[in-house]
Amino acid sequence: MKAAVVTEFKAPLRIQDLPKPEPGANEILVRIEASGVCHTDIHAAHGDWPVKPTPPFIPGHEAVGVIEAMGPGDTGRHVGERVALAWLGKACGHCDYCISGWETLCEQQANTGYSINGGYAEYALADGRYAVPVPDGVTAFDAAPLTCAGVTTYKAIKMARVRPAERVAIFGIGGLGHLALQYARIVGGIVIGVDVEQPKLDLARSLGADHVVNARTSDPVEEIKKLGGADVAVALAAAPRSFEQAFQSLRRGGRLVCVALPADGNITLPIFETVLFGISVIGSIVGTRQDLAEVFQLHQAGRTSVIATGRKLDDINACFDDVLAGRVPARLVLEF
Amino acid sequence: MKAAVVTEFKAPLRIQDLPKPEPGANEILVRIEASGVCHTDIHAAHGDWPVKPTPPFIPGHEAVGVIEAMGPGDTGRHVGERVALAWLGKACGHCDYCISGWETLCEQQANTGYSINGGYAEYALADGRYAVPVPDGVTAFDAAPLTCAGVTTYKAIKMARVRPAERVAIFGIGGLGHLALQYARIVGGIVIGVDVEQPKLDLARSLGADHVVNARTSDPVEEIKKLGGADVAVALAAAPRSFEQAFQSLRRGGRLVCVALPADGNITLPIFETVLFGISVIGSIVGTRQDLAEVFQLHQAGRTSVIATGRKLDDINACFDDVLAGRVPARLVLEF
Amino acid sequence: MKAAVVTEFKAPLRIQDLPKPEPGANEILVRIEASGVCHTDIHAAHGDWPVKPTPPFIPGHEAVGVIEAMGPGDTGRHVGERVALAWLGKACGHCDYCISGWETLCEQQANTGYSINGGYAEYALADGRYAVPVPDGVTAFDAAPLTCAGVTTYKAIKMARVRPAERVAIFGIGGLGHLALQYARIVGGIVIGVDVEQPKLDLARSLGADHVVNARTSDPVEEIKKLGGADVAVALAAAPRSFEQAFQSLRRGGRLVCVALPADGNITLPIFETVLFGISVIGSIVGTRQDLAEVFQLHQAGRTSVIATGRKLDDINACFDDVLAGRVPARLVLEF
Amino acid sequence: MKAAVVTEFKAPLRIQDLPKPEPGANEILVRIEASGVCHTDIHAAHGDWPVKPTPPFIPGHEAVGVIEAMGPGDTGRHVGERVALAWLGKACGHCDYCISGWETLCEQQANTGYSINGGYAEYALADGRYAVPVPDGVTAFDAAPLTCAGVTTYKAIKMARVRPAERVAIFGIGGLGHLALQYARIVGGIVIGVDVEQPKLDLARSLGADHVVNARTSDPVEEIKKLGGADVAVALAAAPRSFEQAFQSLRRGGRLVCVALPADGNITLPIFETVLFGISVIGSIVGTRQDLAEVFQLHQAGRTSVIATGRKLDDINACFDDVLAGRVPARLVLEF
Repeated sequence: MKAAVVTEFKAPLRIQDLPKPEPGANEILVRIEASGVCHTDIHAAHGDWPVKPTPPFIPGHEAVGVIEAMGPGDTGRHVGERVALAWLGKACGHCDYCISGWETLCEQQANTGYSINGGYAEYALADGRYAVPVPDGVTAFDAAPLTCAGVTTYKAIKMARVRPAERVAIFGIGGLGHLALQYARIVGGIVIGVDVEQPKLDLARSLGADHVVNARTSDPVEEIKKLGGADVAVALAAAPRSFEQAFQSLRRGGRLVCVALPADGNITLPIFETVLFGISVIGSIVGTRQDLAEVFQLHQAGRTSVIATGRKLDDINACFDDVLAGRVPARLVLEF
Repeated sequence: MKAAVVTEFKAPLRIQDLPKPEPGANEILVRIEASGVCHTDIHAAHGDWPVKPTPPFIPGHEAVGVIEAMGPGDTGRHVGERVALAWLGKACGHCDYCISGWETLCEQQANTGYSINGGYAEYALADGRYAVPVPDGVTAFDAAPLTCAGVTTYKAIKMARVRPAERVAIFGIGGLGHLALQYARIVGGIVIGVDVEQPKLDLARSLGADHVVNARTSDPVEEIKKLGGADVAVALAAAPRSFEQAFQSLRRGGRLVCVALPADGNITLPIFETVLFGISVIGSIVGTRQDLAEVFQLHQAGRTSVIATGRKLDDINACFDDVLAGRVPARLVLEF
Repeated sequence: MKAAVVTEFKAPLRIQDLPKPEPGANEILVRIEASGVCHTDIHAAHGDWPVKPTPPFIPGHEAVGVIEAMGPGDTGRHVGERVALAWLGKACGHCDYCISGWETLCEQQANTGYSINGGYAEYALADGRYAVPVPDGVTAFDAAPLTCAGVTTYKAIKMARVRPAERVAIFGIGGLGHLALQYARIVGGIVIGVDVEQPKLDLARSLGADHVVNARTSDPVEEIKKLGGADVAVALAAAPRSFEQAFQSLRRGGRLVCVALPADGNITLPIFETVLFGISVIGSIVGTRQDLAEVFQLHQAGRTSVIATGRKLDDINACFDDVLAGRVPARLVLEF
Repeated sequence: MKAAVVTEFKAPLRIQDLPKPEPGANEILVRIEASGVCHTDIHAAHGDWPVKPTPPFIPGHEAVGVIEAMGPGDTGRHVGERVALAWLGKACGHCDYCISGWETLCEQQANTGYSINGGYAEYALADGRYAVPVPDGVTAFDAAPLTCAGVTTYKAIKMARVRPAERVAIFGIGGLGHLALQYARIVGGIVIGVDVEQPKLDLARSLGADHVVNARTSDPVEEIKKLGGADVAVALAAAPRSFEQAFQSLRRGGRLVCVALPADGNITLPIFETVLFGISVIGSIVGTRQDLAEVFQLHQAGRTSVIATGRKLDDINACFDDVLAGRVPARLVLEF
C-alpha cells in the first residue's frame, strides 16, 4: 500500500510502498477513501509537542474508509461498513473516564496518526471498537473533516452549555471555525463570526452567522460589546491576542472555550473580572465516539455543510505548505 | 446609633454617633445583632479595588439583625423577623440575570457595606426584598459568617458541580475555607484541606476533612496526585503560588474554582494542559438570596459548624489588624 | 374601552364598553395591538378547571401592545415600549421559586385573563415587572402567539433537555405544535411531526420537520419505532390515546413532556417500562419572563415562523367556535 | 462447587454440586465470598416478570468475591483482586447507550443471576470488563448489598438531581431504603423516612433521617406537607398506595423517582397537578459500573453504613421466606 510517512521530524513526508497490515484481536483493516489534513498532523510531523510520536509513522486522524477485513473479537462492526478513524484510536475501556462517557480523557489512550499509524495511506488498521460508523447519505469526503474538525468544535459547543438565544462568538473561521459556527447555531445560538480575512467572514455569513466582525479593520471586543457581549466565545485561533480578545468580549456569566493551542503555551486571565463577572474558561479536547456519531447524524439530517478541497496523497507536502501559508479556504481532504 | 465609619481610605475607622435612618419604599430598618468581619471590608476601607466606595461609608456585609420598621411596599418581610444583609444589597430585578436566578451578576447591583451603608453599626437600612430570613434555630452569631463566607463558598462548590465521591481540595482553611470544606462534604465530596499552618489543618480534620496537606512542609501537588489528583480545587488563598498549586493538583476533567483575588491581578494557565486534560477554570462570586437561604437551611439542619470569635464594634480597628496579621482562627463577629 | 367580557360561565362573551383603567403602584397601562386566542381562554370562559376565575372578567393572556401610562415604582419599563402580557401576570417575587428562576411555580401568582383582566380589550393593566419587552423587528401580530403558545412549547423543549441529534416527536401540530417543532429543531433535534390531519403534517414539513406521521392512517408508535424510537415526545394533544402513543413511541432513556391536559384528568403509566427503560414523564407549565425574552430573541433572529390568522374582537365568539371545531390552521390573533 | 439452583419456577431452589466453570475470552472466575439476597432474585425464581430466565439457572446479582482465574483479553482486572458482580453482567460496549455512560439501558445486556448464572454459588463466571473492583477497606459482606441495593438507590438519588437543602422523602425503609436515605443525605438532602413499621423508622433515625413518618399511624402526605412538601420522593415500596402518597407529598417542581415495581403494573398520575405544578416522574434502573465504583468509594470513606444479616447458602429457601414475610431488618447476605 502507498503511504505518506514521517521518517524524521521536520523533514518532508516520504511516499512509500508498505505492506498492507494484518488485523489482530479487535482490529479492523480499513481501505481509506478520504483523509482530512489537520494542523495537528503538521505538529506531529514536526515533533512540536511535549509528548512526541516516534518516527517512522503515518499521520492522519480524519480517516474515512470501508472495512475490508477484521481480526477476532466482537467490535460491533462488520466488513463492508464505512467507518471513521478519529484522534481517539483506542482507550483502555475500564478506567473511570472510559466508563462514564469521558474516554477522551483516558490516560491510556492511543492516538491515530500519532502513537498509532493513521490515515495518510491506502489502508489503515484500527481498533474496531473505536471506529465510528458513517451513516448512509454521508460521503467519505464530507465525513473526513467531520471526524476531527467537526467533532472537536461540536464538543467545544457542548462544553459551553449554550442556551438558545445566547450569543456565541467564534474566533477564527477556517477548518474548525466554519463548523463551530454551524454547531453554535444548531444548538440555538446567535452566532458572531470573527476573523481577520474578509473571505472567511463571507464564508461565515453564507453558513448562517448572524453577525461577522473583521478583527483586522475593527476592534472585535468593542464590536461584540455593542451587540451586548458574548455569552460564549470559542477560541480557535492560536494567536494569544485572539484569546485575549475572546475573553474580553464576554459578558458576565460568560464562558471562554479553549480549543487552539497558542504558541507561547500560556494564557493569562485577569482574576478580578474572572471572579466578579462569574467567567469560566473551559479546555475542550476532541470528542467521544458518541459525539462523533451525533456529528454524523446532524450531517445526515442536512444540518451541516462541509467546506473542503480535494487533494492527492502525493501532494501531501504541498498540502502542508498551503495550510501553513493560510492558503486553504477551510479544509483539505486527501482523496484515494 | 453607633457606627464604625470609613471617613478616608486607609485611615482607621472612626466610631461615630449617627442618626437612626428612616426606611423608604421597599426598605427595612434592621437592628443589628451580629456582623461578621470579612477581608473584603478591609479592601473597602483601603480603597484597594478598581471600583471604589465613596467615604464616608459604613462597611459590613455579614450583618444579621431583627427588623424594627418597614417602609411601604410588599417585600415579603415583616417586623420582628430576623434577617441577613449580604453583599448583594439590591439588584434591578428585571435584567436577564435577575430574572434567571443570577442576580449576583446584575450590572445595576448595589453592595452592602460598599455602595450602601452596611452592618458595622447598631442599625442598618436595607432593601427588604434582598434581605434573607434567618430561620428559627440559627443564631445571629452563626448567621453572620454564613452570610458571606458561607454563601460564597457554598456557591463555589455548586459552581464546581461536584459529583459524589469526587475529591475536592480546599486551598486555604480560614473564614471561608472552614465552611468550604463542609459544603464540599455536604455534596458528597471526599475533602482534602490544604494550608500552611498546622492549627488550620487540625481544624479542617475536626470539621470532616478526609485528608489534610501541609503546604509548608510538603508539596501539595505531589501529595494530592498521590491520592489520585483533585477533581475540584477551590482557590481561597490569595497567593499566586496557591492558585498555581491548585491548578496543578487537578486530574483530567478537573475544575479550578477561583474565589480569592490574588495580589498581582492575574492568573496564568498552561494552555496545553487546560485543553488536553479538559480542565475548567471557574470564577465564582458570592451567592444569590436562594443560595443563602439554602446555607441557612443546612445550618438549621445541623449540617454545618461555624467557627468564629466574638468582638465588639469599638474594637474594629484591632479586628482589622488581627485579620491582616493572620491571628484569627476562622472568623471574627462583632456582637451588639 | 371596548372589551370582550365573560359575564357568566359557558355563556357567549359580551362586547362591553368599560372605563379605561388607571395604573397603580408598579402597574402599566397597555394599549393592546394584538391578542392571541388560546384554548385556555375557552376553558376560562367555561369555568372548566378546578380553580375557577370569577366573572365578570376579561380573558386573554397573549396580549401585546404599547405602554401608554405607568404608575409609581421602578419596573424597568418605559412609556412607548412594546410589551407582552403573558399568563404569568404577577408573582410574589420573594418565595424560593421566584428567586431561583422558577416564578412560574410561585404559589401566589396571578394569571392574566384569569385572575386578573387580560387582553381581549383595547387596554389592559399589568404589573410592569412581569411585562416582557418585545424587541425591535418582532411585530405585535407575531409576538402574540409567541407569548403563550411559543413560550409554553419552548419551555417544554427546554425541560426535555434535548441533546443535538436526538429524535423529538411532536404529538399534535397546531397553535402549540407548529412552534414546538421549530424549537425542537432550534436545539438540534431531529423532528417528527405527528397529527391526524394531512394539512397539519404539510405545515410541519414546511416548518422543518424531518419526518411526519399521520396517526390516522398509520400507527405512530410503529412508525416512530422504525426510525429508532423517540428520545423525546411532547404531548400537545389532549386525547388520552395520544399521550399513550407518545409514551410508547419512546426509546430507552426517553422523556415524555406533558403540556396538554387530557379530558379525564389522568394518565396511566406502565411502571415496568418506566423503570426498566429509564423513562421520565415531565410536566411543564408555560415559561418565565426569561424564557419569553429568549423566544422573542429567537424570532427576532429569524429562527421561527408564526402561523396565525387575524380576527377582530367583535368576532370573539366565532373565534371560539372555530377553535373548538378545529377549523383553525394554527392560531387566531385578535387585531386592534 | 456448591450452588443454589432454580430448576423450575416457584419450586424451592435446590442445592447442587456443579463443576467449577472455566473462564473464556474476557471472562473471570470469581470465588464468591458474600452474596446478597434481593427481592428480584425471588421474582427470577418465580418467573414473575414478562421476560423470564430459563431454568436451570443460579440467581444472585449482589455477588462479591476474589478473582481466581482469567480467560484471555485485557479486562483491566487481575487475579487476586476482589470484585463485585452486579445485575449488569455484560453489555454490548458499542451502542449509543454503552458509549455515553448509559450501559444500563443497553438492549443487548445480559443480567447476572437471570440470563447468566449468578452469585448463589461458591464460584461464578463473569465478564471481567463489567466486574467492579472493591476497594481496600470495604468488606465483601458490606460490598454485597451495595452491589444492587446500594447502587440502585444511589442512582435513583442521582437521577433526582437533588440540590442541597432539598427535602427528600424515602418511601419504604428496608434493604434499599436504608441506603437510599443515606445517599439522599450524602448529596445534601434533608431526609424524611416513611414506613409503616416503627423499627424501620428507628433505623432511619439512627442512619441520619432528619424526619420520620409512620404511614400506618398518620397520613404521610399531610405530615410531609406540614414540613413544606417533598422536593423529591423516592418510591421503594411496591404498594400502589405508597406511590400515590409519594406523588401527593411533592411540592411544586417536585420529582418522583420510581424504583419499585407495583403489583398491578401501572401508576396513574393526575395530569392537571403534573403539568401545573411542574412535576416529573422518573424511572430509574440499577446503576452503571461507574455508579457502583462511586458507591464503594463513599463506603470506603466512611459515608455509609450497611445493615445486613449473615446467612448460609443452604438456608436460601428460608431466606426467601423471611424476605417475603417481611422478617428482615434490611438485607440478608449469604456468607461463604
